[in-house]
Amino acid sequence: MNYEAFFSDDVGSFLRSPVREIFKKVDLAAIYSFAGGYPDAATFPIDDIRRISALVLEKYGAKALQYGATQGVTELREVIAKRYGVPLANVQITTSSQQGIDVCTRVFANPGDVILTTAPTYLGALQSFKSYRARIRTLDDADAFSSGRVKFCYVIPDFQNPSGGTMSLEERKKLVAMARERDFLIVEDSPYRELRYSGEEVPTIYSLAPERTLHLGSFSKIFAPGFRLGWILGPEELLDRIYVCKQSLDLCPPVFDQYMAAEFMGSGALDANLQKSIALYRAKRDKMLSLLEKYMPEGVSWTHPEGGLFLFLTLPEGFDTVALYDRALSAGVAYVAGSFFYPDGSHRNTMRLNFSFLDASRMEAGVRLLADVIGGRSQE
Amino acid sequence: MNYEAFFSDDVGSFLRSPVREIFKKVDLAAIYSFAGGYPDAATFPIDDIRRISALVLEKYGAKALQYGATQGVTELREVIAKRYGVPLANVQITTSSQQGIDVCTRVFANPGDVILTTAPTYLGALQSFKSYRARIRTLDDADAFSSGRVKFCYVIPDFQNPSGGTMSLEERKKLVAMARERDFLIVEDSPYRELRYSGEEVPTIYSLAPERTLHLGSFSKIFAPGFRLGWILGPEELLDRIYVCKQSLDLCPPVFDQYMAAEFMGSGALDANLQKSIALYRAKRDKMLSLLEKYMPEGVSWTHPEGGLFLFLTLPEGFDTVALYDRALSAGVAYVAGSFFYPDGSHRNTMRLNFSFLDASRMEAGVRLLADVIGGRSQE
Repeated sequence: MNYEAFFSDDVGSFLRSPVREIFKKVDLAAIYSFAGGYPDAATFPIDDIRRISALVLEKYGAKALQYGATQGVTELREVIAKRYGVPLANVQITTSSQQGIDVCTRVFANPGDVILTTAPTYLGALQSFKSYRARIRTLDDADAFSSGRVKFCYVIPDFQNPSGGTMSLEERKKLVAMARERDFLIVEDSPYRELRYSGEEVPTIYSLAPERTLHLGSFSKIFAPGFRLGWILGPEELLDRIYVCKQSLDLCPPVFDQYMAAEFMGSGALDANLQKSIALYRAKRDKMLSLLEKYMPEGVSWTHPEGGLFLFLTLPEGFDTVALYDRALSAGVAYVAGSFFYPDGSHRNTMRLNFSFLDASRMEAGVRLLADVIGGRSQE
Repeated sequence: MNYEAFFSDDVGSFLRSPVREIFKKVDLAAIYSFAGGYPDAATFPIDDIRRISALVLEKYGAKALQYGATQGVTELREVIAKRYGVPLANVQITTSSQQGIDVCTRVFANPGDVILTTAPTYLGALQSFKSYRARIRTLDDADAFSSGRVKFCYVIPDFQNPSGGTMSLEERKKLVAMARERDFLIVEDSPYRELRYSGEEVPTIYSLAPERTLHLGSFSKIFAPGFRLGWILGPEELLDRIYVCKQSLDLCPPVFDQYMAAEFMGSGALDANLQKSIALYRAKRDKMLSLLEKYMPEGVSWTHPEGGLFLFLTLPEGFDTVALYDRALSAGVAYVAGSFFYPDGSHRNTMRLNFSFLDASRMEAGVRLLADVIGGRSQE
């Protein structure tokens, strides 16, 4: 049976995640993988989770197992409102911060509308934007405003995926001024903000422009991604439409997971665990930087992130990391080609490296293998 | 700040769930509610959940807390494939069966495409169809095929929400023949199928037409809705597009919840619990039917469901259950007006009554109050 005639027009614009396709083909445990955005399993608070799961069943009982409110359970919204200093009405829980990106795109973008991004930017956001047939334009594109109605600008200001870069206060203020002048919204994706290893905290864009910013938070990097939970902070009138949309998307976020997160964040266990995660990741980042210094051939450069999970590698002009990928995989090392993060597929000489997932001991072997592949010294 | 100009065209078609709005306004514990579709909390296997949550952390550890595959974790897909006798490749896990409805609509329907339904039908499905600006036509509408490309027919063949009705084998075969002749797909929503209290099981539509049916299953009524989990059985080529769509929707279903469901279903605990739930609900259905018989005024009729959570009440012509609703709420009893389940808002003299949520003891007081409101004997 031929199904092609049944598909909606959106389907033609769906973009398969090359990252998720890699995971389908490869046993991650069998290779040295710098590819994913997986947290280190050592940061998962298993003892807390064991304790809290018993507590949630004891304290909330059937309430934790029943349907919940579409906005999220009040207990979790209150804990988030308190932590980030916003009124309860400005907090919507999402079933992952990926859903936050998707629902914002759905609620704001018609096919042909323009979404501004940096380049490179998060692949999952590009997937969502393309799936709704929005036009993706970069912030420095002079023609962006003449190619369609600009609905919002999507940025990851802290320890960006994939570059690892952080926007300065001046850059944030400039973006806010531009948004106010040209009248567009800002979607501030902030999954890594709490993972800072050095340097000074910069105010969120949401704090600079609460009237036109939707700030997306995530439990994936500060609790565990296996609980699919994120949140949106934003103006009540915008959250109201997102709330109605979410009714038909999935009725409500996972309720048991929400009570787990509420107890974890509300009890102080999150902050204690975060201290340990930051120390672990800081050491991993430092190790990764020193290994790159030690092994990478002449002409290769990389970013020096102050937090998050990623850094970005630039090889000399002429290198093609998409073409190089199969050789790397044969050699036993995985990365994500940098061009996947560029809306126009350019910058074929770049790659994203994750430094959170691999054990420090395996990291050295992985970087050495990767350096050999880049240097042309790997065995076929 | 005026946000109206930022919204996408879809937003204008969003339909607020009157059911969820009721829940925002009313403390369910303080009234007699026949309104929701909530399972009886007594069916939640709390002891199993306590045991299994410890087991999942012990057996799977970090794997249950990490990101998972977009198709769902293999352990859960295998258990479902085995239970329903389908190959693994035909199983996709969803973050609730509401997501199953939504993702099918997204992948198949352009604005203006036709979706066939019965009337009445599930409100959450109508919300999803309207949000994508599909045209909703009823199966008996002779003009349905001339009003646009018919992409699929949405039905709940077993113990339908809201009517409680079950399609006979002949009706299912007739629908399949029509789908084959007119070339449309069938979305078979099946959240209540395992909750049969009397009568003979009828084959699924999926078993009659596996090449053009997407069968949606749910853990909400056989485990607990607080774990937001459902599944889709369908042709591999269709599931492939749903899989790509789901990458940008939320990356993967809740992983911890999936291992919980896999252990619950795979160990036989589900079947043991299901026996108890069926006995409990059978008694509640019988009680509800006898209470309606006892208290309802002349001229009121209702359906006699063989399973599920709902029955449908028809008042004499001229009654308006939407207008009656505030009086009912003041009297302390809640229902959902039947017209909300009709795509055209007709049948204002009907209402949906849930019989799964209220304790048997509270059920009698609730039915009596409702009969008084209908009979005009309630106090203002």
